[in-house]
Amino acid sequence: MEKSAQTQHPVKAFGWAARDTSGLLSPFKFSRRETGEEDVRFNVLFNGICHSDLHNIKNEWGSSKYPLVPGHEIVGVVTEVGSKVTKVKIGDHVGVGCLVGSCGTCKNCSNHLENYCPESLLSYNSTYYDGTMTYGGFSDSMVCKEHFIVRWPENLPLDSGAPLLCAGITTYSPLKHFGLDKPGLHLGVVGLGGLGHVAVKFAKAFGVNVTVISTSANKKEEALKHLKADSFLVSTDPAQLQAAAGTLDGIIDTVSADHALKPLIDLLTTDGRLVLVGAPSQPLKLPIFPLLTGRKIVAGSLIGGMKETQEMIDFAAKHNITADIELISMDYVNTAVDRLAKNDVRYRFVIDIGNTLQAA
Amino acid sequence: MEKSAQTQHPVKAFGWAARDTSGLLSPFKFSRRETGEEDVRFNVLFNGICHSDLHNIKNEWGSSKYPLVPGHEIVGVVTEVGSKVTKVKIGDHVGVGCLVGSCGTCKNCSNHLENYCPESLLSYNSTYYDGTMTYGGFSDSMVCKEHFIVRWPENLPLDSGAPLLCAGITTYSPLKHFGLDKPGLHLGVVGLGGLGHVAVKFAKAFGVNVTVISTSANKKEEALKHLKADSFLVSTDPAQLQAAAGTLDGIIDTVSADHALKPLIDLLTTDGRLVLVGAPSQPLKLPIFPLLTGRKIVAGSLIGGMKETQEMIDFAAKHNITADIELISMDYVNTAVDRLAKNDVRYRFVIDIGNTLQAA
Repeated sequence: MEKSAQTQHPVKAFGWAARDTSGLLSPFKFSRRETGEEDVRFNVLFNGICHSDLHNIKNEWGSSKYPLVPGHEIVGVVTEVGSKVTKVKIGDHVGVGCLVGSCGTCKNCSNHLENYCPESLLSYNSTYYDGTMTYGGFSDSMVCKEHFIVRWPENLPLDSGAPLLCAGITTYSPLKHFGLDKPGLHLGVVGLGGLGHVAVKFAKAFGVNVTVISTSANKKEEALKHLKADSFLVSTDPAQLQAAAGTLDGIIDTVSADHALKPLIDLLTTDGRLVLVGAPSQPLKLPIFPLLTGRKIVAGSLIGGMKETQEMIDFAAKHNITADIELISMDYVNTAVDRLAKNDVRYRFVIDIGNTLQAA
Repeated sequence: MEKSAQTQHPVKAFGWAARDTSGLLSPFKFSRRETGEEDVRFNVLFNGICHSDLHNIKNEWGSSKYPLVPGHEIVGVVTEVGSKVTKVKIGDHVGVGCLVGSCGTCKNCSNHLENYCPESLLSYNSTYYDGTMTYGGFSDSMVCKEHFIVRWPENLPLDSGAPLLCAGITTYSPLKHFGLDKPGLHLGVVGLGGLGHVAVKFAKAFGVNVTVISTSANKKEEALKHLKADSFLVSTDPAQLQAAAGTLDGIIDTVSADHALKPLIDLLTTDGRLVLVGAPSQPLKLPIFPLLTGRKIVAGSLIGGMKETQEMIDFAAKHNITADIELISMDYVNTAVDRLAKNDVRYRFVIDIGNTLQAA
């Protein structure tokens, strides 16, 4: 398997891969395809670590194929472009998020919703059109169809901007789609992690009044002082929740563990929208009466399409929105993974691939 | 208690009431207020029996106060109007549904959503502004604020039109609000009972393509031939559901018993809407992944506001939409209640109050 990964394509590549369900990452030689006429090739400079990387390297969703090179918050510098590429040129900074392919012809693709295309291909652990596995951004270089390349704005930092390619679009897209981007609206953000802290920043930039909802009372100061949220609710305090009942136009719920929906639904106004962007593996309990009595909505949302991802990155640059990150070297990655599993990061690890990934 | 009900107001009234959790209905003398300046008084001619009446007469929702006179699909003829009433005159036919009061000043009331006003008052089993209980349409006469009176269109039958005041608005409103009223869209209707059969009729009148989804294969001919649905799915047949996956823009789910949501969510397209209008008493299991991967929505909806109820009745008259009913006499009501509990009705019982309610 590794031999084939190393020789199946003409261009040598190097990264770190998980080899089995231990999830332990180690150096890995593989190969990437030549630059096709619609392809952009780039050297990876930075890559964020998303919570879904943890699930994938340990095969917790049951679909992992080893060796697995994770990474879908990828920023780099272009080294080669195909003959038909018009979006970027050599030397430009670019980003790639979760998507590297989609059918291009279905209704979702026609509506700029490649993220909901049934044939969408992910940056890693997907079988590409040529039958080979995709490998992600924990690697020295990437090659990707121009359509899935994000142009990087000049003033947006490469390192702290990288997580926007997943955490950013995952929260920006539902804020826009569900009409939660209007000044003066009241939004709840549940969970103050990689997704949640970026949701707060986008919402504040939209002029929305933000309430952070967390199980940890000790995140209050962080939420209010550092992230400039307008208020804070401890989700385990019935009196606080009762006092805020019926006040929120929408909630972005980033929690991927099992949790109660009723207290969140009760916080919503009539026509309020509870949007889940985390992915609990087991069904949650949905009380129906509280939905009926306010025409309330529970919805899901998954990253965003390429047009909207570019829009999000441009908006972030304009409003100086980045993730709060801890920049690490490649050889710290296994420690970082362990710490992320314990939520011991504020708020996103980003690997300095360009300076610290050394060929073995 | 009964003595007080009989004497607390100046105008004598007579109906049938449940006295205890047996739910057995029997003749009941009570009284109604005088006609206030904004009030409309009318003689009840017809009243439909809704499934929620069953819950209420037996106190299955825990909020019933006896004696309880049910009935919230009420049609009658005006006998007196207050000095400020402009909407109707003596001799006009009118309808009253679930609502007889709301605060009139909150955001919901201002948006014509009296049905979501936290202080809304129901046609029966609510405590009215004067501190007395409201009594419903299983009675010889009603008095109601003009605002909650529906003008009855000339060509709409009084008997088979009565159920529209609850079953009609309950299905019409979410079809409109969730954008499921556009010609060519594909709609699923789950459960072919009092609500479901009316949902099919409205959707067909909108030009929507309708799929009836039922646990009973033997409802297929009824759905397709009689109600003119376009297709039929047996919800317990995985092969049928799989073949229809991703095809429905929306679903109106009328089931009030526990049931699985995942097979319904899987039937939806991207941005598909599953709208629950039944009220299961226990939480349902909500799988999150299927919501995320298509930005799908699960929502609730509860009757409708007064403006929309009038619009619905006018639309029904224009498109010759009525409920399929079995007209019964007042003294058959306890048998009808038993049959309704067994779903032995096609599709709504309506009591011929005007001709069969005799003062004891």
